[in-house]
Amino acid sequence: MALANAATTRPGLSPAALDRMRAALGADAVVVGSAALAGYLDPGSLAGPDAARPAAAVMPSSVEQVRHLLAIAREHRFALWPLVGSGRFFAPADRAAVTVIIDPKRMARVLEVNEEFAYALVEPGVTYAQLHDRLRSGKPPLWLDCASLAAGSLADDFINRSFGYTPYNDHVIMQCGLEAVMPDGSVVRTGMGAMPRSSSWQLFKYGYGPYTDGSFTQSAFGIVTKVGVWLMPAPPACKPFMVAVPREDDLQRLIETLKPLKITMAIPSTAVVAHVLCDASLAAPRAKYFSGRGPMPAAAVQKLAGDLNRGVWNLYGALYGLPVGIDAAWKVISGAFGGIQGARVYSADDRKGDAIFEYRAQLMCGVPATSPSGAGNWMGGGRAELAQAAPLTGDDAMRAVQIVQRVAQAHGFDYPSAFIATWRSALFSGAVAFDPKSNDDRKRANDCANAIITEMAAAGYGTVGAPPELAEAAAATYSAHGGTLWQVHRKLKAELDPHGVIASPLPLGHRGV
Amino acid sequence: MALANAATTRPGLSPAALDRMRAALGADAVVVGSAALAGYLDPGSLAGPDAARPAAAVMPSSVEQVRHLLAIAREHRFALWPLVGSGRFFAPADRAAVTVIIDPKRMARVLEVNEEFAYALVEPGVTYAQLHDRLRSGKPPLWLDCASLAAGSLADDFINRSFGYTPYNDHVIMQCGLEAVMPDGSVVRTGMGAMPRSSSWQLFKYGYGPYTDGSFTQSAFGIVTKVGVWLMPAPPACKPFMVAVPREDDLQRLIETLKPLKITMAIPSTAVVAHVLCDASLAAPRAKYFSGRGPMPAAAVQKLAGDLNRGVWNLYGALYGLPVGIDAAWKVISGAFGGIQGARVYSADDRKGDAIFEYRAQLMCGVPATSPSGAGNWMGGGRAELAQAAPLTGDDAMRAVQIVQRVAQAHGFDYPSAFIATWRSALFSGAVAFDPKSNDDRKRANDCANAIITEMAAAGYGTVGAPPELAEAAAATYSAHGGTLWQVHRKLKAELDPHGVIASPLPLGHRGV
Repeated sequence: MALANAATTRPGLSPAALDRMRAALGADAVVVGSAALAGYLDPGSLAGPDAARPAAAVMPSSVEQVRHLLAIAREHRFALWPLVGSGRFFAPADRAAVTVIIDPKRMARVLEVNEEFAYALVEPGVTYAQLHDRLRSGKPPLWLDCASLAAGSLADDFINRSFGYTPYNDHVIMQCGLEAVMPDGSVVRTGMGAMPRSSSWQLFKYGYGPYTDGSFTQSAFGIVTKVGVWLMPAPPACKPFMVAVPREDDLQRLIETLKPLKITMAIPSTAVVAHVLCDASLAAPRAKYFSGRGPMPAAAVQKLAGDLNRGVWNLYGALYGLPVGIDAAWKVISGAFGGIQGARVYSADDRKGDAIFEYRAQLMCGVPATSPSGAGNWMGGGRAELAQAAPLTGDDAMRAVQIVQRVAQAHGFDYPSAFIATWRSALFSGAVAFDPKSNDDRKRANDCANAIITEMAAAGYGTVGAPPELAEAAAATYSAHGGTLWQVHRKLKAELDPHGVIASPLPLGHRGV
Repeated sequence: MALANAATTRPGLSPAALDRMRAALGADAVVVGSAALAGYLDPGSLAGPDAARPAAAVMPSSVEQVRHLLAIAREHRFALWPLVGSGRFFAPADRAAVTVIIDPKRMARVLEVNEEFAYALVEPGVTYAQLHDRLRSGKPPLWLDCASLAAGSLADDFINRSFGYTPYNDHVIMQCGLEAVMPDGSVVRTGMGAMPRSSSWQLFKYGYGPYTDGSFTQSAFGIVTKVGVWLMPAPPACKPFMVAVPREDDLQRLIETLKPLKITMAIPSTAVVAHVLCDASLAAPRAKYFSGRGPMPAAAVQKLAGDLNRGVWNLYGALYGLPVGIDAAWKVISGAFGGIQGARVYSADDRKGDAIFEYRAQLMCGVPATSPSGAGNWMGGGRAELAQAAPLTGDDAMRAVQIVQRVAQAHGFDYPSAFIATWRSALFSGAVAFDPKSNDDRKRANDCANAIITEMAAAGYGTVGAPPELAEAAAATYSAHGGTLWQVHRKLKAELDPHGVIASPLPLGHRGV
């Protein structure tokens, strides 16, 4: 009770609001108290373990309860932060005190698995691992395109537009129909779900009139309560492969060789081109490989590549379909990559026992997986993950790498990174990895990540993924035509959510609570 | 001058407004006069040749001129109807008198063709035929996914979410980046185009923050002035095929056989399953085949199928890729369809000289085409085209056909139709074909089309395509949860366009001009 009282006396969230939430959801669905709420913070974030805690967290178990929460928030003037959608909680202290996290734990039902049509309808809390368990018994089982951790939420990866690794890698394309509770409490189903007795809510994406599903991604326009996800029927065969090149500069030719193979979809999977530091970070913390301080020197990187039996840059892809079709495509693809001086081209048989390859192969073949070392453990857990969109060309890749390596080294950090190629672009994805126990490291990491966002934008590479602490900095680079696009976003947010009861790290002007 | 004066003295649009537009665009860019404006009406529409004419039509040649037009419309309280986006003009007389069409004729520049990345950036007036001419010289040439007529606009087919026939059939997926002028005159570029010096506007779809491109489809939220379109690199080979089944009821098994082949993407093209009346309508008017009145009897339909050397239902699809991969897939696919009793399976060689097959094959192999008989000429040009989304199952297909055939016959019409299968659904696309010279026919066609929308909705098949005269009826069927989705649409429209200066046939509540 002491902890609960402490929470209820913070400025901002009134005891009456907490009572209302307890009455609506049940007392055990309302989490207060510093210790419990600290569990919602990430000690490895830029904000660190001393970041402001939210006023409370709540665990609604139904759409009706979400509507109640929104009504209470409107009346008592606080904001709800849906972990699924708005992502990890972060807010300055004054706003944190009037913000309540929505934890999706109790809205984690697989509402439908349809094997005939290869889709699932899930609540926000459903994880890849959970759905995979459910699908495993299918004959043949449907595949999952896992975009993050096996313990990650499918709905969250859709809302955050994360990419996975199979031909179904684009989760916005593979989403079909959603349900959201709007700030005013109305329940909206998009697409064919807006028709009573519809037969096609998870079958046809677009419905009639404006197609607004994308407006529910990275937006905080509504609280998403159901998402339809298309699943990939297992193909007759799947052939993962790897191409290793020995030197930093070989990246240029590796990406140039990849470009036409990706644009023509000769490689239908996501193609990941990972630096050896990125690969190594999947397997173990840096301390296992290198004991020095500051960024790892080039000679150590080369040695690491040798020790891990791979290149400084390593491409991972996969082929799918009838074996004869795979064989024909493999001849073209292995021939193309084999033409790069010094390149080694591997099939799965060549990489037996390589835990990094096996992890990546599993993801490309439709099975949720988590890397051997867990996520982001390079420097003990501190990291600021960034992603920029760049054209899929060798020159752009080299330029992007040179910028981030220069900036990261100037700030004293490694920047384990990879290019994630889908369609016509490469997401250049990396992390400023820092020691979470050092406040100095954290401060420098913050400066470093900000500098990367700014310098990459100046070079034409826009940041499309950033930690919540840097969301405003990332959005600020989208300033063309006087920032009109974000002005439209803020207009729409203001119209849909005049009291700002749905919070997110994005600068949507919803801070009027 | 007499005609011009007649136009300027209509109630609603003031001479001053016309003068302002002439000053902004040049006198020859402002079309007035009954005769000239009649050219914007469609005598074969449900509204017929006596439909209300717009007050004027204007032909801006730049984004700046579009901004001027919006400013004049806001000040003088009239609405602009962009043909590209809002489609064919239709409005009741009182609104028509204060509505000015934007004709895209002078905004028809191909701004960029990028062969390296296989995309184009086009203005709204650019047609398939025009872009195809430009692409033809490429080695190999890029393909176009033509969703309507060769003379149709790429931007319009994106905004209206029309499907084409190649693996790039889904134009919302294959669109990357757009520019629009908002009702308040601000110019917005979406996705990476919102960043100054962006390198990836046509390469990465999503940008940072809400992904709102879909909100510019079927919406009248802005006037689209540029669209990025991904183009398909020509594959090594393309193999179009056809499967004909002899009886109406064979549709059930034909669709059931298609279902897994489509959902697994074994058939990567759009699969069209066309009734023989639909095929026949592509080649010639009905009078060439049948001279009776009222719906064509079953025996005549059977005879027609024989005369045209095809089935009562006919499936068209295509395979792409390396010849060896196509051969392997073709064994599976031809085997599956060959197992249907009475089915005939054809390759292109078997259909030499069949103009209908050749037209469809051309579309599936990336070449814009127009059918031998032109569009919708079955009864001399009168038609109300509808499309409903249905699950891709044999039972649903049979049920849908039975509903529309019953309704059409009760009203005295044929309903030439086809199922357009993409992803997990079939768009059931058809037309109430009527004699445009008969007012009685037109009235019955209107009743018939309305009844089809209503009865199909009651059976769970939502209308996703309708002529402008029936847009409100179609939207009214999307009434789940008290019509919340369309309430959101209207809220957003009201916020973005408080004076309703961008018009469309959709019930977006923008009629306050």
